[in-house]
Amino acid sequence: MALELTFIPALLVILLAAGAGRLLSRGIKQPVILGELILGMVLGSFIILAPAAQGPIFDIAEIGILLLLFSIGLTIDFEEFKKLEVTSSVVAAAGVILPFVFGYVAAIIFGFSHIVALLVGTSLVATSVGISASVLMESRMLRTKIGTLIMGAAVADDVIGVIMMSAFISLAVTGAIQFLDLSLLIVLAVLFFILSLTVGIKVFRKISEKITVARESLLLIGIVVVLAFGIITQEIGISAIIGAFVAGLVVGQTHYARDLRGHVSLIGGGFFIPIFFVTVGMNFNLNAFTGVGLFAAVLVILAIIGKIVGCSLGAKACRFSNRESLAVGIAMVPRAEVALIIAQIGLRQNIIGPDVVSAILVMVVITALITPPSLWKVLRGIGEKKKT
Amino acid sequence: MALELTFIPALLVILLAAGAGRLLSRGIKQPVILGELILGMVLGSFIILAPAAQGPIFDIAEIGILLLLFSIGLTIDFEEFKKLEVTSSVVAAAGVILPFVFGYVAAIIFGFSHIVALLVGTSLVATSVGISASVLMESRMLRTKIGTLIMGAAVADDVIGVIMMSAFISLAVTGAIQFLDLSLLIVLAVLFFILSLTVGIKVFRKISEKITVARESLLLIGIVVVLAFGIITQEIGISAIIGAFVAGLVVGQTHYARDLRGHVSLIGGGFFIPIFFVTVGMNFNLNAFTGVGLFAAVLVILAIIGKIVGCSLGAKACRFSNRESLAVGIAMVPRAEVALIIAQIGLRQNIIGPDVVSAILVMVVITALITPPSLWKVLRGIGEKKKT
Repeated sequence: MALELTFIPALLVILLAAGAGRLLSRGIKQPVILGELILGMVLGSFIILAPAAQGPIFDIAEIGILLLLFSIGLTIDFEEFKKLEVTSSVVAAAGVILPFVFGYVAAIIFGFSHIVALLVGTSLVATSVGISASVLMESRMLRTKIGTLIMGAAVADDVIGVIMMSAFISLAVTGAIQFLDLSLLIVLAVLFFILSLTVGIKVFRKISEKITVARESLLLIGIVVVLAFGIITQEIGISAIIGAFVAGLVVGQTHYARDLRGHVSLIGGGFFIPIFFVTVGMNFNLNAFTGVGLFAAVLVILAIIGKIVGCSLGAKACRFSNRESLAVGIAMVPRAEVALIIAQIGLRQNIIGPDVVSAILVMVVITALITPPSLWKVLRGIGEKKKT
Repeated sequence: MALELTFIPALLVILLAAGAGRLLSRGIKQPVILGELILGMVLGSFIILAPAAQGPIFDIAEIGILLLLFSIGLTIDFEEFKKLEVTSSVVAAAGVILPFVFGYVAAIIFGFSHIVALLVGTSLVATSVGISASVLMESRMLRTKIGTLIMGAAVADDVIGVIMMSAFISLAVTGAIQFLDLSLLIVLAVLFFILSLTVGIKVFRKISEKITVARESLLLIGIVVVLAFGIITQEIGISAIIGAFVAGLVVGQTHYARDLRGHVSLIGGGFFIPIFFVTVGMNFNLNAFTGVGLFAAVLVILAIIGKIVGCSLGAKACRFSNRESLAVGIAMVPRAEVALIIAQIGLRQNIIGPDVVSAILVMVVITALITPPSLWKVLRGIGEKKKT
């Protein structure tokens, strides 16, 4: 019997689970996020949220992932990020092509139709950037070359994933790819990045040189910018978290950056972000595992191998060391948002069946859970090697 | 035509209004809260919240008022608070009796029944602690003797108000006061205060001596304590904000207090508390003013005079100066929670009519808006006098 909780009690229990998750992570020497996800899963089998509490909790969780990406944008070395633009694109492309082909071919072999196979392939394309970002932050690798590369590649493949998803879902629903809509999406996305990172930075620098603000007001302004950028990218059709990341990059180039980084990491790390990861864990639908067939197992393995091999080869081709290339590959393994949207829309539109949906869900859960410990281990290896 | 907004856009607009409210307040040299309330009222006539956004926004606002009271509990001088216990009770009692009698008699004169008059009187009893607390905090008067006295009296009259409300609503609904329920409420409330401020403080001190925590974890723990105390007082039947205040008093006696005060004032002042006051302004129902009769005007005047005279006399009797006594009286003028609950339940149960409800609403709005500038002025007078 699961206990139904209203907003304040639910919030209390989720924060307690987050705290317990931290202790667990410390105990087993793993990144904080793993404990939060696990405690979230445990919590999810004991409590359910009252209908009136669901909206508020998930909306607060969404602020959490926006603040995480903002914080990462604020922290990253922007000059390095620009230098690694081409490398990131190579890694992202390699990490898109291989999993897509793997997923497509596997679905065809298992007897699914061409269109289902396209969607299955696409579900393997986009990295869920939050999980690796959280591990990178905790291991203080964000300002290193591979940390920057991983973030660049993860953002790039997220955008590619959204574009592919839009194309194939419109193909599945209307029978044709809406090239006009798609071109608009691509043009607007490119425009957004270019304008934000040129004009945007200039404008924000000008403002920051003229105005000094109290710390509460600085935090308030920071959150306003995150939400505004998030709304813009969401309206364009790419996800709000990309907007939050770009907001971080832009504000990161002003002298507000240092103070704001501290404020956002406090409010994010002390409240919003743990709520995000615990609720992610709570949403992991373990019922999806009960009817798991061979296809799900194959999909999980291909999802993991596809990204690790694809991205590692990409990084290797750009002259990163073996260990660094492996770290990049592992960091790109988690999938979530794009895969879950494909599962949701696909099921609702009767394009894919419950078997495929359950395979996608299993893939999301397993890739989310195996990444933090593996990435943690590889990154620590790199950190120790640097010290010697 | 009001624009309907979903969660993230609504949050963005509310934070922008809060920012604009701060600028306005600075421009007219008034406390921040006044600008936030006014901008909230302006905003409320241009936008409405989409149904799915209402729960999340108001729940975030509730966290705001909890964090404000927590922050005040953390800041207040506990030894002074204990010393002023008797004085606070005298001020609270004087400020309860006079407005209650005023409201009761006025309602009788205007031809309302005995039971309606009891409820009208009760609606004038309880101070809305948030508004004066915010002004006290901003004018840095919280740790002075009158700041401490005001907080003590406001908390006391809130508890008295809740007890009276429970008694008279049960009288109105069931025809008799449920003395058993009422005694339970009183016993539990007293027990809660005593246990929290003795055993609670000891336990938290022990814990704080043994465990040091990172700043994100400290904030997380602080919020957990606030929510837990809030749930306890809400379950007892007094409001959650009283629990949050006591949580602040308790944690304030540990060595976590200094860091936590900074963290909570940042996260509260930079996000949650402005959202609370802007949404309070948005909820001010200006339609209530359209049909305002003589009764509403009389009620507003009695609400203001009753508290100022009652509390000032109480403070004066306890040997505070004229100006200080006036500050205490003005600080106790705002009414909200208890009055609004009486209006709501009274209307739903057909005990009071729309005319009385609208009079109560007008009283809430006007007392909320006149307090910040008046209190601000008197407090500054006291501050300047001290300097010379």
